Amino acid sequence: MPGYIAPLEGLIEKFRSLPGVGQKTAVRFAFSILDMPREKAAGFAEAILAAKDSIRLCERCQNISDSALCDICGDESRDSGLICVVEDSRAVLAFERTREYRGLYHILHGTLSPQNGVGPDQLKIRELLQRLTGGVSEVIFATNPSVEGEATAMYISRLIAPFGIKASRLALGIPVGGDLEYADEVTLARALEGRKLIDN
Amino acid sequence: MPGYIAPLEGLIEKFRSLPGVGQKTAVRFAFSILDMPREKAAGFAEAILAAKDSIRLCERCQNISDSALCDICGDESRDSGLICVVEDSRAVLAFERTREYRGLYHILHGTLSPQNGVGPDQLKIRELLQRLTGGVSEVIFATNPSVEGEATAMYISRLIAPFGIKASRLALGIPVGGDLEYADEVTLARALEGRKLIDN
Repeated sequence: MPGYIAPLEGLIEKFRSLPGVGQKTAVRFAFSILDMPREKAAGFAEAILAAKDSIRLCERCQNISDSALCDICGDESRDSGLICVVEDSRAVLAFERTREYRGLYHILHGTLSPQNGVGPDQLKIRELLQRLTGGVSEVIFATNPSVEGEATAMYISRLIAPFGIKASRLALGIPVGGDLEYADEVTLARALEGRKLIDN
Repeated sequence: MPGYIAPLEGLIEKFRSLPGVGQKTAVRFAFSILDMPREKAAGFAEAILAAKDSIRLCERCQNISDSALCDICGDESRDSGLICVVEDSRAVLAFERTREYRGLYHILHGTLSPQNGVGPDQLKIRELLQRLTGGVSEVIFATNPSVEGEATAMYISRLIAPFGIKASRLALGIPVGGDLEYADEVTLARALEGRKLIDN
């Protein structure tokens, strides 16, 4: 099978290692690198190294950070009695966008998944338990509403029980602006189960 | 609007500069870089620079190459009397995959597109004309069957006319394995126009 010259095939292969990128897309990406001015391509390469080298985990919440303590953990105005447990940094950004939550976070970096070899030791669970010694009043589980997310929340909530700290889970229900017609039956059942009285 | 820390935002921005990549995909790509081992990320950065620095254009056909003359132009067994004019290197690979074509190529690196500021001087047309002085018997235009591709082929074929060299165009028609029901009317009209007699 005829192919491209080696340095181009090498770059195509790298792009193929990105999530959801197949051969055609990788070829398109590689050619767009070739079409860039030299400085722009060099800037791309540097950004990869800079991200990789300058980003570490916040020593408290385990979120990606460029300093020992992330901006949120370092913010004195936030409620340190409240910890929202999430799977990854993307979820933190989603909560921050709501501008409603003023507590801290804890990032697990995944969910329990025995078939993929992810056990409790692969997640930042020990680091979470270490934070529960002083002044924490509530842990909010905000893992994804998937089988793994639910199982992970249940597992950790049992570990937390001895601390006598309140544990809560995000409400499940129909999304705001959603159409009932398209809601799946599990979501609808949970929405019904969690229904609230209307105060008139 | 809360965002990610600077080195991560920088990388997301680079990924967004790739064709067809929006914010969500760029975030996914950037996180996959963070999840890579350091050596793999460094290899990615190096592949970008290697592709950019080691790839140049073949001095004859203008295809991307890692030497002065590309493998195809350097292959003595190919028919140097035949030049297939294409828009880009991807088309060369498509022809090579057929294993049917044994002539040489000429890569224009685009099509005429006045509204995008691409005139004859931005394409490798001069380099094509310089190749027509010795022993070329036919130039096959294989630009894409788009308005720009057709216009570019027509423009260059007029420049070639004084050389007294045969100029041809790829056949247009219904694709092999295609379904007539889904063929657009222009393609169908061209297929009808170019119909061939069946020899019985």
